[in-house]
Amino acid sequence: MSNFEVRIFGTGSAIPTNSRLPSSQIVTINDRHYLVDCGEGTQIQLIRNRIKFSRLDAIFISHMHGDHVLGVPGLLNSLSMYERTHPLKIFAPAGLKDVLDVIFAQTHSYLTYELEFFPLEDYKPGAVIYKTDKFEVSSLPLEHRVFCRGFLFREVNKKPKFDFYKAKALGVPNNYFKLLKQGNTIQLADGREILPDMVLGEAEPPMSYAYCSDTRFVEKLVPYIKRSMLLYHESTFLHDMKSRADETYHSTAKEAATLAKMAEVKHLLLGHFSARYRDLTPFMEEAKEIFSNVQIAREGQVLKLKELTESNE
Amino acid sequence: MSNFEVRIFGTGSAIPTNSRLPSSQIVTINDRHYLVDCGEGTQIQLIRNRIKFSRLDAIFISHMHGDHVLGVPGLLNSLSMYERTHPLKIFAPAGLKDVLDVIFAQTHSYLTYELEFFPLEDYKPGAVIYKTDKFEVSSLPLEHRVFCRGFLFREVNKKPKFDFYKAKALGVPNNYFKLLKQGNTIQLADGREILPDMVLGEAEPPMSYAYCSDTRFVEKLVPYIKRSMLLYHESTFLHDMKSRADETYHSTAKEAATLAKMAEVKHLLLGHFSARYRDLTPFMEEAKEIFSNVQIAREGQVLKLKELTESNE
Repeated sequence: MSNFEVRIFGTGSAIPTNSRLPSSQIVTINDRHYLVDCGEGTQIQLIRNRIKFSRLDAIFISHMHGDHVLGVPGLLNSLSMYERTHPLKIFAPAGLKDVLDVIFAQTHSYLTYELEFFPLEDYKPGAVIYKTDKFEVSSLPLEHRVFCRGFLFREVNKKPKFDFYKAKALGVPNNYFKLLKQGNTIQLADGREILPDMVLGEAEPPMSYAYCSDTRFVEKLVPYIKRSMLLYHESTFLHDMKSRADETYHSTAKEAATLAKMAEVKHLLLGHFSARYRDLTPFMEEAKEIFSNVQIAREGQVLKLKELTESNE
Repeated sequence: MSNFEVRIFGTGSAIPTNSRLPSSQIVTINDRHYLVDCGEGTQIQLIRNRIKFSRLDAIFISHMHGDHVLGVPGLLNSLSMYERTHPLKIFAPAGLKDVLDVIFAQTHSYLTYELEFFPLEDYKPGAVIYKTDKFEVSSLPLEHRVFCRGFLFREVNKKPKFDFYKAKALGVPNNYFKLLKQGNTIQLADGREILPDMVLGEAEPPMSYAYCSDTRFVEKLVPYIKRSMLLYHESTFLHDMKSRADETYHSTAKEAATLAKMAEVKHLLLGHFSARYRDLTPFMEEAKEIFSNVQIAREGQVLKLKELTESNE
């Protein structure tokens, strides 16, 4: 079973507070790291959380608001200080390239590695933008004041495993198990041939994580994130500020929970809270009325998707 | 007595560490704040230290390296979120203007207040760049790999105060003291006229703070910072790495102490330590061999210049 976890660095919105930092998260799959949004101070969080810079393979930036993007230049710089030589992929709105070009020129910086820049505008919503043999990342159509994309991380190629009970039911002696696991066809003493496929169980369902921030309530997201294991959805406001949420293209806790319910996700994680709120309990209460499996994101939190799966069985 | 203090937010150099943040300090004089350098994360430090954004009057940026400047865009943005309306002065290398223009355009930001940008290239070393009726800031000629200026904060117009002992020696009765303090000339019973100037003591010497980072050892700084109360001088390296310091236009602890001694400053504060050093005791030891009144800067430290004066008397 591969590891698949999400580590939260920032749950604030436009203005940081005493306890809430700008948006940024690390998705870790098979010990490789993928940064999702990169607000100011992200590199300091990475260092404090002992995230190995060398294991960072790609950065995904949802949109060009300062609280999601101002940590990028410093982080890219520091990777050079650590003398990174392997390329880094970055998926972001095209405008980030202009910002980086000017900053690098004016701060006399150069990168020791290749930065492979992929403008998100080049991909249709739902398109796979990044792929390994274990998982893929696709873009989600969010609706914010500016061009904005969410990201869906989803396992692929999950292989069914050898099923001890199936083998026993077929009367296969234990000393043949290893051969079958290795993919060999065997012949039993009674002449029957046993193919590896005959002793395979069901493949575990692929684990998936959907990141939806910043966005207003978007019903058309439902098919894209259907039955995801974990949905991170922004809830900048409580529902009594629905008109302010509408004006600023943000969501309320109630709306996030409604989407979670419609999409039948397993777990909902609320984040991106306005600086006006000190106590976040009302977000939990408001969401729970609609969707019970909800948590409030907090700085430093780590969610292991495998444990969420098990807690759900 | 006006307050005059320096609060340290970051003592690191190019790469932040677990315990050391990028360069940034607040100089507070008469309850108004002046930010000196603004590495990534500065606004979060300001919030955590409860520095009132509304009392920030000017920003001084020494040079265009990321660890001194990448916190500026986020801070300026946040001031707008707090709906600042009064102008903000910023003294920085001209290139910062280009960076801000691109970032504001690409992150869809606009400022709610006027940003008065003063390119440091417009001032000769030693020139006064900012002035109030209580203090002035002048630029210091540092030598780094890129254009770089230090800053000297120095009290001006320190008024001599009424001297009780002088008045007594002249035989002035107590009931005349108030009149003299108010600037009135009085006539005593014996016919003598006493002018206010006749009962004034010495004015206290002006307090001054010199910020010198980043720079190699620059002997020509001496007359600019002569007899300053407090000198913050970078010491990126220990002296056994003198050749690395030379290559990168940085200083060693020994060089910082030598400059402090030559300039006859009262106190030396060392900072801007390379990430390669965990224990900073050797910096203290190296500097003390040359200049005894030295401290190692640390995050969150507050130095009150009045207390330094008294500890020195």
